Amino acid sequence: MKLNDLQQTPWTLARRAEKMNPSVIREILKVTERPGIISFAGGLPSPKTFPVQAFREACDKVLRDDGPGALQYAASEGYGPLREMVAAALPWQVDPAQVLITTGSQQGLDLVAKILIDAGSRILVETPTYLGALQAFMPMEPQVVSVDSDDEGVRVGDLAAKAGSGTDRARFLYVLPNFQNPTGRTMSEGRRADLSQLAAQAGLPLVEDNPYGDLWFDQPPPLPLTARHPDGCIYLGSFSKVLAPGLRLGFLVAPPAIYPKLLQAKQAADLHSPSFNQRMVAEVMKDGFLERHVPTIRALYKSQRDAMLAALGREMAGLDVQWNTPAGGMFLWARLPRGVDAIELLPRAVDKGVAFVPGAAFFAGQPDARTVRLSFVTASVAQIDTGIAALAAAIRETPGLRAGTRG
Amino acid sequence: MKLNDLQQTPWTLARRAEKMNPSVIREILKVTERPGIISFAGGLPSPKTFPVQAFREACDKVLRDDGPGALQYAASEGYGPLREMVAAALPWQVDPAQVLITTGSQQGLDLVAKILIDAGSRILVETPTYLGALQAFMPMEPQVVSVDSDDEGVRVGDLAAKAGSGTDRARFLYVLPNFQNPTGRTMSEGRRADLSQLAAQAGLPLVEDNPYGDLWFDQPPPLPLTARHPDGCIYLGSFSKVLAPGLRLGFLVAPPAIYPKLLQAKQAADLHSPSFNQRMVAEVMKDGFLERHVPTIRALYKSQRDAMLAALGREMAGLDVQWNTPAGGMFLWARLPRGVDAIELLPRAVDKGVAFVPGAAFFAGQPDARTVRLSFVTASVAQIDTGIAALAAAIRETPGLRAGTRG
Repeated sequence: MKLNDLQQTPWTLARRAEKMNPSVIREILKVTERPGIISFAGGLPSPKTFPVQAFREACDKVLRDDGPGALQYAASEGYGPLREMVAAALPWQVDPAQVLITTGSQQGLDLVAKILIDAGSRILVETPTYLGALQAFMPMEPQVVSVDSDDEGVRVGDLAAKAGSGTDRARFLYVLPNFQNPTGRTMSEGRRADLSQLAAQAGLPLVEDNPYGDLWFDQPPPLPLTARHPDGCIYLGSFSKVLAPGLRLGFLVAPPAIYPKLLQAKQAADLHSPSFNQRMVAEVMKDGFLERHVPTIRALYKSQRDAMLAALGREMAGLDVQWNTPAGGMFLWARLPRGVDAIELLPRAVDKGVAFVPGAAFFAGQPDARTVRLSFVTASVAQIDTGIAALAAAIRETPGLRAGTRG
Repeated sequence: MKLNDLQQTPWTLARRAEKMNPSVIREILKVTERPGIISFAGGLPSPKTFPVQAFREACDKVLRDDGPGALQYAASEGYGPLREMVAAALPWQVDPAQVLITTGSQQGLDLVAKILIDAGSRILVETPTYLGALQAFMPMEPQVVSVDSDDEGVRVGDLAAKAGSGTDRARFLYVLPNFQNPTGRTMSEGRRADLSQLAAQAGLPLVEDNPYGDLWFDQPPPLPLTARHPDGCIYLGSFSKVLAPGLRLGFLVAPPAIYPKLLQAKQAADLHSPSFNQRMVAEVMKDGFLERHVPTIRALYKSQRDAMLAALGREMAGLDVQWNTPAGGMFLWARLPRGVDAIELLPRAVDKGVAFVPGAAFFAGQPDARTVRLSFVTASVAQIDTGIAALAAAIRETPGLRAGTRG
C-alpha cells in the first residue's frame, strides 16, 4: 500500500495495519505453484495422510444423526465431546473446561496476542521462530525480543537476561518445543526442566505451541512445558497435522485466570469454530482412531526425512552445507556455504526446478542469511532426490563460491 | 476477572482485554436452555431451513472428487469458484478479486476493526446497533459514537454533525440497512441515497453489514449502499441465514485500496476459512440452488412474523406496548409500557416460561430501557402464541403498572 493510493480514498488505516505484511512464504508458494517445480517450501502435510474415507463416513453419520444440530450456531467454547477428547489425550491433568476449540491453532495465536499484548509490550521468541506467530503478534504492536537458541532450544541464561522487569517485564515467551517450525529441532528434557523452573520463579508466562508433537519418529518428545506448570502456560494444539488442515480446527488449554478473556476474544473473533467440523472430527476420533492412524503418518514422514538426509549426503558432497537430523515433524534446517545468501539463491534454484524458504523469514531480529528451511513431507522420494540434486547444482553455480570452502 | 485473581498469577492482561465482556446474549441463552422455556431471545435461524440432504450429497461429492484437495491448506482469499459465485450474485459490478471469504461475517467485523481502528479512533454506529459488531470493535479501543436513528435508518443530519474532522474524523460508519439486528427495520431508499451522498462528499467510509438481506417477505430491499459507492464501502455478507450458520462462512467485498490489508489480517487470524466447507457450499450453491431454497425460508419466516404480530395484537390488548412490522429478517422490536424496565422484566418472564433480549444490550450509548428484541424464527407458531401470552402476563404483573397507561 503506497501512501498516495490511500490519499485518493476516504480510508485511514490503523497504525497496526502498517505492521502487517504479506506472508513471505505465501508469496514464495505462489511461485512454486508453477508446474514442474519441486517444492520443499510449503508446510503442507502430505495429502496421502488425510483419512478421506473416514471423513466421508463421519460426514454422513453426523448429518444423518443430527443434521440440524451440526449446522446450527453453537457454544464459543467448542463442542463438548471434542473438548473432553482433547483433555483426555493430553499427558497431564486437564479439565475440559480449560479447553477452547479454535479455528486452527493460528487463531489461538491471534487470541493470545489480543489479550496479552499492549502496544510496546515486550514479548520473547526463539531464534528463529514460527513466522505465523510473528504475523499474529505484530498487529498488536509488541516489542519482539529474540532469545538466543541452540540445538536444545532457547538458552535459559539469555532468557533470564531478556525477561525484563517491572512494567517492561515480558508478557510471555512463545516457544515451539517439538520439531520446531522452521528448524525441526526439539527442546531437550534438561532444557525444559531449566526453562520451566526459571519461568515459574520469574513469573514469566509461556505460550507453548505444539502442532507437530505427535509426529515423532523413534520416541515421543519429552513432556510439554505446560504439564510442568499449567497455571503459567497457554498450550496450543492442532488437528491439522494428525487429521487434515482444511478443516481449520485447533485448540488451546488455558489456566482459569485467563480462560474467560480468551473466550470473550474468541466470541468477538468468529463466534465459534464450525460446529459441523467439530462434530465430524469427534466422530472420526472416537474409538481410538488416532492411535491407528498417526503411526502411519510417522512412518511415512520418517521415510521421507531419511530420503532427504540421504540425498543431502550424496548431493552436497564437497560443499560446505550443514543440516540437522530432525527427530520428527516436517522440516529440516540447513546452512549454506559461506558467501551463499539463501534469498539470492532462491531464484536460481527455482530456475533449476526446486524451491525452499530462506531462513531469514523466521528471524524476529538479525537473520542468518545462510539458512534455509526444507520441508520433507510434501514431495515424493523421487522428487526429493531430484530436488536436492537441483539445489546442490544451484549452490555450486553461486558466483564467487569456492568449492570446499568451510565457513 | 477480579484483580486479586490475577495478582496470584504471572499473567498481565492487555489493556484491550478490559474492554471485552461476556456476551449478554450468550449469558441469557444459557438461562433459556432450561427445558420448557420458549425463547424469543436467540438469533438462531430455524433449523427447519437447513438443507441437510443437499449438504450430505455435497459432502460426499466433494470428498469423492478431490478429498485431498478439500482437506489441504488453501488460499487465504478463499476458494476461487465460491468467490466467483459471491461476486456474480451481488447487485453491482464486483470483481471476484475483491471478495474475501471469512469465517462467518463476524470475522469480517474483526478484520475491519483490526485494520481501521486505533485506540481512541472515532467510529459511528446506529442507535441501537448489532451487539456482535460492538464486541468485535471494542478490543481495538475505539471511541464509539451513536448516531440518532429512526424507522428509516440513521438520521443523516446527526451523522453529519458527528462525523468529526481532521484527526478526529470518523474511521467509518457501521450500518446494517436490511432487517436490522436488533430492530428489524430497513433503511429507506431515500435515506440510502442521502447517506451515500453524504458519505461520498464527507469522505466517510461505510461498513455495510447485510446478513439478512435475502430474507425479504414481500419485496427485495433497496439497493445496498456499497453498490452506490463501492470504493468507499466494505460490504459484509453471510451464508449463515440462507444455508446454515454451523459452517461459519461469510464474505466481505472491499475496494482495492484496502483489500490487501484485510487479506493480511485474515492470514494472521486463521490462515484461511475451512477449505472443505467452502467447497461444500460451492457444490450446494451451483445450479441455482439458492433461487429455489431461499423462497422457502422467506415464506416460513413471514408466516412466523405474522403469527407473532397476531399474537401481540391479541395478547397485548390494553397494555401500552408498541412494536414494528419488519419487512424481512428474524427480529421484531417492541417497546414496553412506561415504568417497565426490560432487564427487570426478564426474570419474571422466564418464571412464566418465556425469554427475550432486553434492548439495552444493543445501545452503544444511553440505552432505552423499555425496548426488547423478539426473534420470531426459532419458536414454532404454537410456541409463539403461548410465549407472547406469557410475556403479556409478565408485563401485567409489573409492580406499580397501571393498565392502559400510555407512555
